[in-house]
Amino acid sequence: MIYPTGIKNLIESFKNLPGIGDKTAERLTFALVNFDKSLLTDFANAIIDVRDNISRCEVCNNLCEGTVCNICSSDNRDNDVIFVVENAKDIILFEKIGIYNGLYHVLDGLISPLDGINPEDININSLIERVKSNKIKEIILALKPSVEGETTMQYIKKILESYNVKISRIASGIPLGAEMEYIDSMTLEIALEDRINIS
Amino acid sequence: MIYPTGIKNLIESFKNLPGIGDKTAERLTFALVNFDKSLLTDFANAIIDVRDNISRCEVCNNLCEGTVCNICSSDNRDNDVIFVVENAKDIILFEKIGIYNGLYHVLDGLISPLDGINPEDININSLIERVKSNKIKEIILALKPSVEGETTMQYIKKILESYNVKISRIASGIPLGAEMEYIDSMTLEIALEDRINIS
Repeated sequence: MIYPTGIKNLIESFKNLPGIGDKTAERLTFALVNFDKSLLTDFANAIIDVRDNISRCEVCNNLCEGTVCNICSSDNRDNDVIFVVENAKDIILFEKIGIYNGLYHVLDGLISPLDGINPEDININSLIERVKSNKIKEIILALKPSVEGETTMQYIKKILESYNVKISRIASGIPLGAEMEYIDSMTLEIALEDRINIS
Repeated sequence: MIYPTGIKNLIESFKNLPGIGDKTAERLTFALVNFDKSLLTDFANAIIDVRDNISRCEVCNNLCEGTVCNICSSDNRDNDVIFVVENAKDIILFEKIGIYNGLYHVLDGLISPLDGINPEDININSLIERVKSNKIKEIILALKPSVEGETTMQYIKKILESYNVKISRIASGIPLGAEMEYIDSMTLEIALEDRINIS
């Protein structure tokens, strides 16, 4: 006797998730088995709801219910600034801080020739189109400071050079509260190069 | 703007699982959003299947589809030995080894007066009943060697003393391949006390 089929299928479904191996999938499945039936119903419905009702904003590629996301359809946002992020999830991080009030653009990836990811594989063309056809004054690049992030930022900068748009990137450096000894040397180098005058 | 409702609900469902906090729930949800729709259907169906079709064996309390589990209803098992485990999951661990061919009993917990878990809160009474009404020759206790495990094993031993049944427990000691220096002192003490003669 090994697991009943129902249990086995649920373990397999959990194993599709990133970072979840055999042991964790079993642990989560056995936890679910002991849940109230109503919680199981909610869980299954939430998955079906995501399957059927979550799509991508046709303007910025953010996750949304419908065709255009809340941010793109809002009247209260500055529509001449675009904040470029790798994933839709990053939008939430910056929205939580609450100091940015412009629009977003989700690339869904970074250029990485070694992994076969070229500019046309991520949502760069739609960003260029937005800059062309709208009065965009500034593009803020908020991609992670890795080889792929740098490549992607340089690529976008190059393409948009001929347009009258200001391009900035968020700062790299020592995170607040970090112990200096645990910071890698690349970050230290960037922090030194990008030093700013104390006024 | 914070998450669309669908995303929010799925994050909440993941957070009900043990060891899954805000960050992990968000990570898993965003991974699911990018899944093929068919995988989402399978996942939701697996949960519904567990909700509707997985129940407890009315003899041994193992997980099963139906009323009696595969092991209890099998003709090929020794039905005079009961192997007592804390969780249904433990049965799989021992079945995988394949050297035990008797029956099982799932307690679904351990006695822990400090947490308000008394003998009547776990499936001990049904174990006693099985010993009383069937010709059980041996009970093998395979509970973890913690305060709760020891308490539970002592309790079961005491109750069954007056019956003509052999009671054993699986061995505690140094796990194979372990470095001695990483083993806690309690385990070392048990390993010393329970030493066996080399024949």
